[in-house]
Order: sequence, then C-alpha cells, then structure tokens
Amino acid sequence: MKPLALHEDRYFDPAPAVRDKARALYERTKDLPLVCPHGHVPPRLLAEDEAFPEPAALILEPDHYIYRMLYSQGVSLEALGIPPEGPEADGIQVESDPREAWQLFAEHYYLFRGTPTGAWLDYEFSEVLGVEEKLTGESAQRVYDQIQSKLDEPGFRPRALFDRFGIDVLTTTDPASSALEHHRQIRQSDWDGRVVPCFRPDAAFALASAGWREEIRRLGQQTDREITSYDGFLQSLEEQRAFFKKMGATSTDHAVVEPVTQRLSEQEASALFDKALRGEAGEDDQRTFQAHMLLEMARMSTEDGLVMQIHPGALRDHNRAIYERFGPDSGADIPVPTEYTRNLRTLLNEYGAHPNFNLVVFTLDESSYARELAPLAGHYPAMRLGPPWWFHDSIEGMRRYRRRTTETAGIYNTAGFNDDTRAFLSIPARHDLSRRVDANYLAGLVARHQLSMDEAHEMARALAVGLVRETYRLDREAHAPAGRTAE
Amino acid sequence: MKPLALHEDRYFDPAPAVRDKARALYERTKDLPLVCPHGHVPPRLLAEDEAFPEPAALILEPDHYIYRMLYSQGVSLEALGIPPEGPEADGIQVESDPREAWQLFAEHYYLFRGTPTGAWLDYEFSEVLGVEEKLTGESAQRVYDQIQSKLDEPGFRPRALFDRFGIDVLTTTDPASSALEHHRQIRQSDWDGRVVPCFRPDAAFALASAGWREEIRRLGQQTDREITSYDGFLQSLEEQRAFFKKMGATSTDHAVVEPVTQRLSEQEASALFDKALRGEAGEDDQRTFQAHMLLEMARMSTEDGLVMQIHPGALRDHNRAIYERFGPDSGADIPVPTEYTRNLRTLLNEYGAHPNFNLVVFTLDESSYARELAPLAGHYPAMRLGPPWWFHDSIEGMRRYRRRTTETAGIYNTAGFNDDTRAFLSIPARHDLSRRVDANYLAGLVARHQLSMDEAHEMARALAVGLVRETYRLDREAHAPAGRTAE
Amino acid sequence: MKPLALHEDRYFDPAPAVRDKARALYERTKDLPLVCPHGHVPPRLLAEDEAFPEPAALILEPDHYIYRMLYSQGVSLEALGIPPEGPEADGIQVESDPREAWQLFAEHYYLFRGTPTGAWLDYEFSEVLGVEEKLTGESAQRVYDQIQSKLDEPGFRPRALFDRFGIDVLTTTDPASSALEHHRQIRQSDWDGRVVPCFRPDAAFALASAGWREEIRRLGQQTDREITSYDGFLQSLEEQRAFFKKMGATSTDHAVVEPVTQRLSEQEASALFDKALRGEAGEDDQRTFQAHMLLEMARMSTEDGLVMQIHPGALRDHNRAIYERFGPDSGADIPVPTEYTRNLRTLLNEYGAHPNFNLVVFTLDESSYARELAPLAGHYPAMRLGPPWWFHDSIEGMRRYRRRTTETAGIYNTAGFNDDTRAFLSIPARHDLSRRVDANYLAGLVARHQLSMDEAHEMARALAVGLVRETYRLDREAHAPAGRTAE
Repeated sequence: MKPLALHEDRYFDPAPAVRDKARALYERTKDLPLVCPHGHVPPRLLAEDEAFPEPAALILEPDHYIYRMLYSQGVSLEALGIPPEGPEADGIQVESDPREAWQLFAEHYYLFRGTPTGAWLDYEFSEVLGVEEKLTGESAQRVYDQIQSKLDEPGFRPRALFDRFGIDVLTTTDPASSALEHHRQIRQSDWDGRVVPCFRPDAAFALASAGWREEIRRLGQQTDREITSYDGFLQSLEEQRAFFKKMGATSTDHAVVEPVTQRLSEQEASALFDKALRGEAGEDDQRTFQAHMLLEMARMSTEDGLVMQIHPGALRDHNRAIYERFGPDSGADIPVPTEYTRNLRTLLNEYGAHPNFNLVVFTLDESSYARELAPLAGHYPAMRLGPPWWFHDSIEGMRRYRRRTTETAGIYNTAGFNDDTRAFLSIPARHDLSRRVDANYLAGLVARHQLSMDEAHEMARALAVGLVRETYRLDREAHAPAGRTAE
Repeated sequence: MKPLALHEDRYFDPAPAVRDKARALYERTKDLPLVCPHGHVPPRLLAEDEAFPEPAALILEPDHYIYRMLYSQGVSLEALGIPPEGPEADGIQVESDPREAWQLFAEHYYLFRGTPTGAWLDYEFSEVLGVEEKLTGESAQRVYDQIQSKLDEPGFRPRALFDRFGIDVLTTTDPASSALEHHRQIRQSDWDGRVVPCFRPDAAFALASAGWREEIRRLGQQTDREITSYDGFLQSLEEQRAFFKKMGATSTDHAVVEPVTQRLSEQEASALFDKALRGEAGEDDQRTFQAHMLLEMARMSTEDGLVMQIHPGALRDHNRAIYERFGPDSGADIPVPTEYTRNLRTLLNEYGAHPNFNLVVFTLDESSYARELAPLAGHYPAMRLGPPWWFHDSIEGMRRYRRRTTETAGIYNTAGFNDDTRAFLSIPARHDLSRRVDANYLAGLVARHQLSMDEAHEMARALAVGLVRETYRLDREAHAPAGRTAE
Repeated sequence: MKPLALHEDRYFDPAPAVRDKARALYERTKDLPLVCPHGHVPPRLLAEDEAFPEPAALILEPDHYIYRMLYSQGVSLEALGIPPEGPEADGIQVESDPREAWQLFAEHYYLFRGTPTGAWLDYEFSEVLGVEEKLTGESAQRVYDQIQSKLDEPGFRPRALFDRFGIDVLTTTDPASSALEHHRQIRQSDWDGRVVPCFRPDAAFALASAGWREEIRRLGQQTDREITSYDGFLQSLEEQRAFFKKMGATSTDHAVVEPVTQRLSEQEASALFDKALRGEAGEDDQRTFQAHMLLEMARMSTEDGLVMQIHPGALRDHNRAIYERFGPDSGADIPVPTEYTRNLRTLLNEYGAHPNFNLVVFTLDESSYARELAPLAGHYPAMRLGPPWWFHDSIEGMRRYRRRTTETAGIYNTAGFNDDTRAFLSIPARHDLSRRVDANYLAGLVARHQLSMDEAHEMARALAVGLVRETYRLDREAHAPAGRTAE
C-alpha cells in the first residue's frame, strides 16, 4: 500500500500565477539542509539513541500542542497517559495502556483541522512514518500498528532519523548550570551529527522563585566555586558560557514576561543578590534583577560572541491546577501584550551597534511586528527579528509575519526559521511548512511584479538557510571541523 | 418587475479554485435553520405581532449602525426622525415626516459602500422586501412605496417573517429585574415560534450608577423581597435566574469595560453592597464589585447550567452630547484595548474546567484574538470564543477572526455565529453573510490542500448550526418540547 | 536604450478577475493631479529652483528610509556621506566623494527588495530619471552617470519637475515661528506652482525642551511682541496662524507621543507657562501643557478654519548615539502603542461636531485602526482618518488600512492620500503606488460583488483626489485665485 499522500502543492495559493512560481521556488529549497538554531529536543535522545518505545510516547507525550487541544475539549491529561509530577493524590487514574491513549487521541484528531499541529502530524505520519491511512477513531489501532512496525526498524532510531532528515545542526536548550553530560556523550561517540547546547540562565536570574538557591548551588558546583556574592555569580556565568561555547554553543536564550532592560550599579545589583541569598527577594526584586542581567548577558555576548535570544511575553502556568499536578510546560502558558520600544531601549543604546553582538528578539504579540519590532530590527545593526514563534509558527502566522515586517525591515533583518520543538519527528515537517509558506510569499511578490524570479530564488535560499546560519553564527565550513575537534 | 438581484457568488474569492468550492459548501448550509443565541430584538415585536408602521420606522430607527454613519457626515439624528429622550429644549426640530427622513437616508446611502451595513441592507431590500431598484436619492420615494406596499401584507408581520426566515430560536436580551411580560405573552399565544430571554444583570452590578437603587428595587419586587443586603441580593439573582430558565433562557450576558475578575470575601462584598445602598459607592467600588460578581455569575452557572457570556471592551456613550440628548445605544460607543490573560485568570482558575460551565468570551480588540483569546479558548475546557462582534461582524472581520484563531484554537473552540442585532429584518442577511464567509474560508483551506471537501462540509455545518447549539445548549430536540410546556 | 521598464500591472492581484478591474480603475485615476496636503519637502528647493547637485545629494541624503536600512546592516551614516551635526570629534571620517557613497548604496540595494522604498526608488529611476538598468554594485557608476546627465538638463530643476509631476498643490511643514521666507519668495516669483505652508507649533509647546525659550523668543519676534505670559503666547499663536493662512496654509500639524487631550483652566495654563519661563518645567508639565494646547488648537481651528492634523505615537530619537551625532530625523524614531478612545475624548466632546472643524488623525499603531480609529472617524463629524503613515505607507500597509477601516468608517471618513515625504522625487512614485493599491482594493470588492464598477470608479476618484481636497479644504477652484492674490 502506498503511504497517505500529501498534496504536492499544499499551502500554496491556488491562483496559478502564484502557485507555479511557488512550486519553482520551493523546488530549489526543499532539499537544503535543516539548520536548527533553537529547540527543545532532549539531548538524551541523541546521546542514548534508543529505539522509541511506542507511538504514544513518541507522538503524544512530548507535544503540549496536542494535549492542550484535547484538554480544551474535556479530555484529561491523565486519560492521555501524561504522568503527573506529584502523587496521584486525588484518585484520578493515569492511563497506563498507550493504545487507549492513542485511541482517545485518534478520536479527537478532527480537532486539529486547519491547525499547524494537524499539518505537522499529517507530514509525520505520511512522510516520516509511511502511515497508509488517515487517523480516525476507526483507523486508530491499525495506524498504531503501522507506526510501531516502523519504530522497530533500526532506521527509525533517533540518530538515523537525524541523518535522514538532513539536519545540519540541532541546538538544544540547557540550563546555565548544566554539565552538558549528554552533549559530551554525543561528542565522544562515533556519530558525527552536530548537536550543540544553548545557554539558558533563566532559573539563575529568578531570585524570587523557590528553586533559585538550588540553581545557584548547582551553578557554583559546576564552576568549582561556592557562590556567595554577585561577583562570584558573574564569574560563574562567564565560565559556564565559555564551557558551553567550547561544547559547540553559539547562543544564549532568555525567557522573561516583559523584555525590560535596566542598568543597575554594581552596588545595587550586589544588594539585590545578597537579599536573594537571604531568601528575602520578592517579585519586584526579581524583575529588576532580570532587567539588569539582560544587559549583562548582552555585555558578555559582545565579549564572547554568543548570539543572544530574548523570548518574552508568555505568562507561564496560567492554569494553576494543571501546573500543580503536571508542572511547567503542560500547555497552560498564555501570551500577554508586550512592549519593546521602551523596554529594549537601554539595551539597544548600550549594545545595539556593537559589531560583535547579534540579538534575536521574538514575540507572542503580533501587534508589535509592524509597530515596534520591524522598526527596531530595521534600524539597530545588532538586532534581528526572530521567526514567528509558538502559536504563530503556522501558515497564517508566517504570512502575517512577512506581510507586517518585510516592508519596514526587509527580509535581511530577520533571523531565518527555527522549529523550536520538543517533538523530534516534527522537525522536518516544520521546516517543510516554513519553506513552502516562504516560497509562496515570495511567489506572490513576483506575481505582483515586485521581484524578479532571480531575486526570489536568492531570497528563498536566504530564508531557508542563509539567514539562520549568519544570524546564529552556524556557518557550516567555519564551524564544523572546529566543533568536531573542540574536545 | 424582478427584484434587484444580489450576485449568487457574492463575498466569495473570485479565483475559481476557491469560488467553486465555496459555492458547493454554502449550497449545503444556506437553508439550515437560523439559531440566534444572542441579540437585541425587542420581544414586544413578537408578542404584539403588529404590522410595521412604515419603512423608516422599520429600517432606520432601530439601527444605530445607520445613523452613526450618517451622523459622521454631518446628518443630525433629529433630521433622521430619531426622537430624543429629553425635552426638545434647544429648538432643534425632530423630523416628523418619515418620507423626509427616508429621503435623507437614501441620499447618503453611498456612504455604506464596502460596509456590512450596506451588504445587509441590500439583502433586506432585495431578498426580504422585493425592492426593484437600487436605493438612491432619486429612487428613494419609489423604494419607500415598494416597501410600504409589502408592509401592508400579512406575510410581513413579525411572526410571519420569523417563520419565513427559518428562525429556530431567537434569544432576546433582558434586564435581571424583568418580569418577562412579552415572553409570557408569546408563550401564551397560539404561535409556536421559540423566543427565549437572556439574563443580563449589568444594571444590578453598576453600584455607582444613577439607576442602581431603582434596579435593585425592581429586582427585589420581582422576587417578592426587599433587598437590603448582599445576601438578599444574591438570593434574588438566583431566583431570577431560575425564573429566566423556566422561561426558556439558556444563557446570561455581561457587559463590562474590562473583563477583570477578582474574588472578594463575603464580608468585603457585603460592605461594598451596603456602601452602595447608602449611596456612597464610587467608580472603583463598582469596578471591584463587578469583578467579584463575574465570579459569582460563573459559580451560579456551574449550578444552574446557564451559559455565561462576557462582552467587554466598549466605552459606552463616548459622545456626551449625543448621550444626554438621545440616551444610550445611540451609536457613540467606542472600543478600548482589552486584556484577557491576566483579567480572566481568577475566573478560569476557579471554574474554567468545570464540566457544567460554558463561558463565551467576546472582544472588540482584535489584537487579542491570536495573542490571548485563541490560546485561552484552546486550553480551558469551559471557554469558547464568541464570534466577531459588532464592528468586526463583517466580511473582513470574520476573515481576520478565522485566520487568527483557527490555527491555535481550531474551529471547535469557537461558539458559532450570532447576529446580535436589534434590526429584525437584518437577521437572515447576517446569517447569510456569515455562512458565505465561512464557506469561503473553508474553501480556501481545501484549495490549499489543508482539508478535504468532506471535512469542509462537516465544518461548514458545525459553523452554521452545530457549534452554536452545543455552546448555548440550544439543542432543538432536547429543548423544544420542554420549552413549549414550561408554563 | 529604453529605460528600465516597470510592469504595467505592478501591485495588482494576479488573479485576472481582480487584475483586469484594477487596471480599468487605475487607468482613470493615474493622470489626475497630485494633491499633496502634508509633507516635508524644504520650500527652499522651490524658492531657489537650483539644479540638484548630483545623484547622492538628490536620492540618498534626504531619505532616512534609505540610510536607516543600510545602518541596520552595519553601514555607517558617515560612510554614506551624511554630515553629522556636531564636530567630527571621534575621528570617524565622513565620506566626501558622493560616488563612493553611491557605490555603497548600490551594493546594498538588494536590502530593499519587497519594501516600499525599493518600489519608490525603482519608479524614480525608471519613470522620472530614465535610468536604463537595475541598480547593483556592478552598475552603480553607470547609473550615477545616467542620473547626473539628466540633472544637468533644465527639465530636471525642481520647478520643472513639480510641473511635470502634475502637482496641484504642495504643502510643506513649517515651525510656528517661521517667517515663511521661502514661501514669500515663491509667491513673488513668476512661477505659478502652488506651494503652501502648514503651521506646526510643536517646538512652542515643548516646555521642557532645551530649545523652548528660543522658539518662544522667535515666535514673539515674528509677531512684534515679547512673550512674557500665556496670554501673549496665545495671541502670537493666533496671529501666526492668520499669517500662515494668508500665505496659503489650510492646515496645522501636531506631533505628540500620546494624543492625550485635557482642559486646563486659564490659571493652570498660565501657571505652567510661567513655570516654563522660569526654566522649571519638567516632562510632566510639558505633557499636561501639550494636552491642553491640543484643545486650544482645536478651538482656534473652529474659528479660523485651519484643518488640524495629529501625528502621534513616535518615540523620537530612540538611538541616543545617532541623535547626538546626527540630530533628529536620522532614522531612529520608533513607534509606541497608542491609545485614542480615552485620549481624544475631551477634544472630540468639545469640538468633534463643530461644523467648521476638520480633524485628521494618524497612527503608527495599526492595532488601533479597527478598534478605535474607524469607530471614532465613523462617528464624529469633524474627524477624518489620515492615510497609512510612515512605516505603514506601503502596499501591505495600505491594504491593512482599507480592510480594517472601510467596513466601519466607509471610505468617506478617510482623508485621502498624502505622501509625507522629504524626498522630492518620490512624490509621483508614492501617489502612483497609492492609486494602484486603492484601485486593486476596489477591484477586489467588485470581483466579490460588493460594488459595481460604476461605484468603484467614483470611489477611486474620491480616494485619489476628492477626499483630500475636501478634507484639507484644498479645492482648486475656490482657492487658486485667492491664493494667488493673497499678497
């Protein structure tokens, strides 16, 4: 039987004047390597390279896009087999049979009609896993069997898929205090896939959070220092950045609710840090400290060249009951309006024209695209606008992004695509969708006589690979050998 | 003479690949019944079932969309025959000849080009009233005559039109203190049209408004109780909700400037209520009380099953002179930016996963669609996103709505269409436009190979009828007989 | 050799059903006169009518859209030959050879792909200057030569171009204290082009700025009065408005960060003014004073009939280093979120229905189009919505503008097009683009059967010329002779 076919013109405008050009543009980018500068695939996956246990663990469990949607229609996370973090206190049973969870998922698969999750899953089923029919409640168990039979083949182990997907480099996201054990393991293996860490110190800046002191302890331990002062803290951060860089990192990442940046004197910063060590720091202290540390991260980036990313605007764990039961990243984060012009001013005035500084700014608030972000990225040399993020990483989201930012910032102040996923199998699906939508956008410009096809071909290539390499300093030639021999 | 023809492909994309699919989808939804879960048609109309007096009173007078636009171009409400509420103090004469008002309207009809009001009126003229030519200053009196001759026929009385329009159920909007006299009258008549009330207690929560004490008095009277305390107030609300439900209601509705929700202790709520009874409550007190009462309304909904609607974000009566002369709902309400993520958090954390709770949230701030509302509706089981409202109930408004919300929330977390009108004749026009635009949206997804036609047919039906029935608990079978025999 | 051809269907939708109608609509507006009610062309240009020195001074230097984009990619303003205002303190050399600056510009010309700047420049090169090849690093010097040879011809002097462009009236922007020397010179010349000033008193309202006292001194001098009180200040403003009007002005213009309006008593206003004279006014005082002065400007407009414009929402000089080196208007202004509903309420309640008052409101915050501005313009008789401004004066920006405002406000509450440019050669390019995009928008409505072609033709003409004449009181017949004989 042939696998379920995806249409070769999917996501293109149906008007022939656009569609034919989109096809031609996509034809030349579809086989380019996948450069992945930001994401959440656990490095353990590629370090251990074990076969995926079964379909539900592979598809359902890591994907909060999926269980978020099912939860919204009354399906509990327990029924999907998602294990709670806390004890099963209230007598709700977690589904232990993955086939039952899969059945439930399949019965609700219609909810994803018209969503990017639906598009990615269709791709995974058809192109990656060779599934032969549409997923429905009726076909659920047969599809499960088809996937399971693939997972038993060696060609479906993580490293084999990595190679088959054509991944050029995969960046993970790692806490500042990490020993990068899995990255070390990958580098010491005989596999030559390029997997690099990204330095994410959020937990170390969250003065008022319950886990802060533990994170500081780990960070100290990792750098052979007991951190008892702001000075020591800065030193440990710098040393860990150097360690991450040695392990292949080219970037840092910072998640904040508001992207406010503010310069504290060293005394002020020290005083806040000491207050936190005494366990007395509150939310306001944390906010001030984060605003200052974003500046310090920018300063260090001008020195060590790590590309700085800011991902602001998500109010985490909006649903307290879900958070208390399942912990963070359970599908209950909700965006808030986000201001950039005033908030980033201090940072951009200090470092926005520094020749060794690349700053990639993301948003969950699309109203800022044309109003703030394109004007900022279209002015400051250091700043690049990150691709459509999270809820906006979708066909319409990408369309709005290009239409609202290109006219002010051009495409050359944008940072290329990133898949930002923890669902390993969705990586090629996401890049494919992005390349198609970009091809279609450019085809529209050609069809309206704003570009020539030659220009569009150049731009399509830049959007697929060139800009992301340049922005994230992930050039293949310059890096590959050095990366391989760094240890 | 044949009536002025509307084009059969109106509002569809002209590209044949989309248009033909849109046609096919619309073909199967156009004759489905009209389910109307929210609107402002006066129940008196259907209780008394009198012939409409003449065209201006039918078309012009109830429609603030119309006189708002004419006012913006310097036409006074008086010249349109809109009667002021206060005395004619300043010597401005109100036009008493409806033919003169009609003439003025016709001369300015070009202002509605490209607006939904223009589209609805064209439908009313052509499809409902059989008008034979385009309305202009030149044709004004002939069109008036054509309409008048229809209004004299028995088939153009309200109940006959209700039946001819295929209205399955029509929900009105009624103050919490209402005796629902007209609803009673309808139920006691031999006509079997289903007209149900909706419980709207805004006036009872507006502690600082001039009319609050009178509203409380009426609410008490209606429940055989003198309301002298917060406790009694809650009891009266619960009893009136039960009465509305007995009279067929399935929903409540709440208009606030900001959708903030906040839990007060019973002491705090009582203290505010007592302060208001003493006539000492200010704007801040009112805001706090409203925020608390939204939670109480949600709690009661979990108990009695009435679906809760929140319509936030309109600054009412922006134009003081118009308000003072003509009272509320005179076309001078203007939207303000509206925040949902933080404001609704308390309510959603308390009741957002309750199995007996349906919450429909509306917005006048489209920037919240993709940023806040789709993520919230795409997570919390109780929440559904209301359709494009008021200024956004339009072709482009509906398009933006689907494009910004479907990818995150899917269509199945949206609440279906509602016409929200006080212009009775516009009901079929509005449903028709909505079904066409939804058909066209789905046709676009099919043409871009994101859906199959089978899926699109299912979705079109859900958008036209299924979702609204489910969200508002307006299922035909379950309700109809009970409703008929409730008295 | 033939000049580089622009495609005759550029910017039109490629679907034939739309394109053909767009062509037909554009065909009838393309040769209408250019009415320019707002812009920044220096009146000196037309007073002196000297030949443009060379291509870089003509194209590059006045256009902060260009050097903003190049700066964003690491090209310094100095390298483009932009002269700093301050001393060359830090040893950076300013490029003195315009051919070198031109070369640098040409090498980066690809950055403008898909931007309106690129579209305007292509038009200027092809249609105005007869350039014969695409600008690239390779062709740079040949293109320079081609342009230079044109600039040497008398037909390329400013007044000749003004006539050739078909400019009906060109409005400049002038400080309140201006003696309008260049306007006087133009009027006293034998050239009959109509160039009129616009009264912009921003500097006189900026109590807390360094230059305020000097501006007040100049304003006093200009009106033969030493301004020592708020009363005298108001008198001087009224007299200068009368002088501007005598010199042909029909409008005033006001740039503020927030469009807040607030009524002060005369005592309060006087006290603020005196405080400022003592050099003690701070940012808050300035904000309050500006909010009050907007009301005073509206009042004066009801008396003298000058059309009032408000351009809010730009945070000026975001990049301090660029500002300190190059002064204002160097491409470092960034928009901020802007609120209108509450901010404009006082002004609109006082003057929004005055029959002698026209108010044109602009925005850099597109989220306010459908939410606040279309509802306000669609209600208040005095208010018109200004065209897409600055970053939004683009193909997609215009599309969003029409799609988000027409359905609520219609086209007849919008103010027509203005080019708002300091780049003289871009004037016909900008009008051409605007007329094409409007034709295409209307063609889409016709293709979706929302308008007839006759209606669309009328509307296209209104958008190109009618609305701007009416809004800005720039009627040709009424004004031309009076304007010519005013002196």
